[in-house]
Amino acid sequence: MSEQNTSKIEPKILQGFLELLPAEQILFNKMMDIIRSNYERFGFVPLDTPVIERAEILLAKAGGETEQQIYRFTKGENDLALRFDLTVPLARYVAMHYNDLSFPFRRYHLGKSYRGERPQAGRFREFYQCDIDIIGNGELSIINDAELPGVIYNTFKEMGFENFTIKINNRRVLNGFFEFLKLSDKTVEILRVIDKIDKIGKENIIKELKDMGLEDNAVDKIIEFIHINGSNAEIISKLRALGIENTEFNTGLNELEQVSQLINKFGVPLENYKIDLTIARGLGYYTGTVYETILNDYPQLGSVCSGGRYDNLAEHFTEKKLPGVGISIGLSRLFYQLNKIGLVKGEASTPAKVLVISMLEDLDYPVEVATKLRQSGINTEIFTEKKKIGAQFKYADKQGIPFVVVVGEDELKGNFATLKDMKTGNEQKLPIDGIVVKIK
Amino acid sequence: MSEQNTSKIEPKILQGFLELLPAEQILFNKMMDIIRSNYERFGFVPLDTPVIERAEILLAKAGGETEQQIYRFTKGENDLALRFDLTVPLARYVAMHYNDLSFPFRRYHLGKSYRGERPQAGRFREFYQCDIDIIGNGELSIINDAELPGVIYNTFKEMGFENFTIKINNRRVLNGFFEFLKLSDKTVEILRVIDKIDKIGKENIIKELKDMGLEDNAVDKIIEFIHINGSNAEIISKLRALGIENTEFNTGLNELEQVSQLINKFGVPLENYKIDLTIARGLGYYTGTVYETILNDYPQLGSVCSGGRYDNLAEHFTEKKLPGVGISIGLSRLFYQLNKIGLVKGEASTPAKVLVISMLEDLDYPVEVATKLRQSGINTEIFTEKKKIGAQFKYADKQGIPFVVVVGEDELKGNFATLKDMKTGNEQKLPIDGIVVKIK
Repeated sequence: MSEQNTSKIEPKILQGFLELLPAEQILFNKMMDIIRSNYERFGFVPLDTPVIERAEILLAKAGGETEQQIYRFTKGENDLALRFDLTVPLARYVAMHYNDLSFPFRRYHLGKSYRGERPQAGRFREFYQCDIDIIGNGELSIINDAELPGVIYNTFKEMGFENFTIKINNRRVLNGFFEFLKLSDKTVEILRVIDKIDKIGKENIIKELKDMGLEDNAVDKIIEFIHINGSNAEIISKLRALGIENTEFNTGLNELEQVSQLINKFGVPLENYKIDLTIARGLGYYTGTVYETILNDYPQLGSVCSGGRYDNLAEHFTEKKLPGVGISIGLSRLFYQLNKIGLVKGEASTPAKVLVISMLEDLDYPVEVATKLRQSGINTEIFTEKKKIGAQFKYADKQGIPFVVVVGEDELKGNFATLKDMKTGNEQKLPIDGIVVKIK
Repeated sequence: MSEQNTSKIEPKILQGFLELLPAEQILFNKMMDIIRSNYERFGFVPLDTPVIERAEILLAKAGGETEQQIYRFTKGENDLALRFDLTVPLARYVAMHYNDLSFPFRRYHLGKSYRGERPQAGRFREFYQCDIDIIGNGELSIINDAELPGVIYNTFKEMGFENFTIKINNRRVLNGFFEFLKLSDKTVEILRVIDKIDKIGKENIIKELKDMGLEDNAVDKIIEFIHINGSNAEIISKLRALGIENTEFNTGLNELEQVSQLINKFGVPLENYKIDLTIARGLGYYTGTVYETILNDYPQLGSVCSGGRYDNLAEHFTEKKLPGVGISIGLSRLFYQLNKIGLVKGEASTPAKVLVISMLEDLDYPVEVATKLRQSGINTEIFTEKKKIGAQFKYADKQGIPFVVVVGEDELKGNFATLKDMKTGNEQKLPIDGIVVKIK
């Protein structure tokens, strides 16, 4: 029945795809679990949508580069594409299931997206995104904008980070400011330039703004504006002191003040968030609060969690007005980067806490011991192959399994087992109940 | 910046794709969590492979119907396809990472696969599979074949099932039997017919066998053979009493005896597993032990967890001999079926255990209360929109949130809150610490 295969196919994966070995995968999953439990802690609802959508759905919002990167193909008569983010599927979902949902609709989605980007370090063609969004029906209170930094803070804290800053800004403040300068028609363009300040520096920003045809005094004002600093309260008063009589600006300023005061009440220490007027988020998409998150010891990683407020999630699919606010963690990229700078350290290649090693011919007793450990909730593996005892211990060591339970003739007769702590080397003869207690 | 969209795109998904509402999604995830924790309890290692693979990798094993159903497309110069199961990617993974893995390699994989099947109830084009496999390097002890029913038993038990049967058989017993009847060249064909006994019944099986050109006495022996019954021990002795002098048959019989005795030691009660000589698993793939799992109250669902032993996992990719044994739960299909017969009952549309409702203008106090609850590990949502208190309670009720915490002027002044149990209607004024204790 088995055909003879003489020529083998080389086992390899596509360029730009991330695949992990078990020790790394365990740590990746641990990060995902932390994200998930924090999203649930804040009452977000899980969602899972198809990876394949009708192309016209995904292309409703895609454009430019994204459209070129999209994986699109036909099957039968269907024009299909793989989702390139989790936001367009969310928009489609909320419009489609509108009558079955309660608003504000708070959803989280941990899932893979696909972009056929040019392969480069840390950019993947298949990548996990971990998104939360809160969608209002017609309107959505500003309190939600203050809550999301609370989620970011708790999530990164539990991942083991201490020294990170959630940077916040408000697009209305920026838009109003440019309106006041009579540069509204150039707002998007100017924001794109400002957004690059950390990458290209002040002088290049000035040059680019002048190249756009801006007058010197406008450029000066822009530079002055984006360099306003101090505590959050100081930044707010300096902005107010500018005396800019513009509705958009002042609405945004009030929002920014409210949000920056309230974030602290969500348990975020003052040192972990900061107004940064240079944060604009390049996309035309955001309309109010915007976020970026910087690991201060590793600024080269860029923002590890970003997002913001938008006016209308699903305008391509429904007449309903659905404002929202959301954030996203690009987990594949983050994991890759953390791994590269040595911040991901795997101790184990298995979730097993115990390896049962047997020196008996008959398998009944070792299996009984393993079954009792498992019934007590302890992740347990039995070494099943006939290998020398030394090789079996080596396996436990290589896999990073913290405890070995050995059973031989003495153990069988005495109805106990020998527990070895692989870290300390300590050995103890104990009844199985005692082993359970010891390990737990 | 926002374009005017007059024509809307109808928000819909492709036929044959499963998408759940929040209450269902929560239950789906709960089943997935149970599967995952049981797989880890038995020391299986998590794995995640790309959904997109090089087409030649996936097509190495696909054939016939599967090849037609595969989603295959090009991007740039790459000939790509979406995986149609988790086994071919596992074979590629083990061959590719052979030097980095420890054997026996015990992996679990919960992930989506894709088949462009003709849409029909319970058959999905995108579906979750939950697989475990144990891969040996050169050889793999029979004890592993007995362990997998232990995993199946614990998983389905924790899902809430009691009355189910794990049916086991051994392909060698079948193959040896047919060899003895000098029908080896027709083994695959006969097994395919036998496999249908539950669907088409004995008379049709006899007819099909005769149509194949089998002599009457051979047909009689086959029918007699597959109707051997009794306890597992009785079946083994009846098989032995047949006096079939065939190496393959007797090797298989010894394996079947060993496995059927050992399964019990893995904690599976005798009433939950049974030798069934009609189980063959249509595929040519399996070479030893085979499994099917039947929910006895719902036999129409067919097997909810199947698998078996195979000789060589990765023959298309490597010269290394890699025998293995594995099982798979088709979770999307199972969930759909259980939902259809009313066995999936959602109580909540959110993981939130508490909804904080505020009657205050100032948001500081309700946010502080919610933050304390969250810091105590309680999943908490704040109702953020300005709605009448009745509407807010209605929201909690609709979402299935079990507790509401109300804060108003009195609560703010007294530094407490009012806890309402939504099931009993009981209300209590308590300090926040007291609320935490009460809910936990």
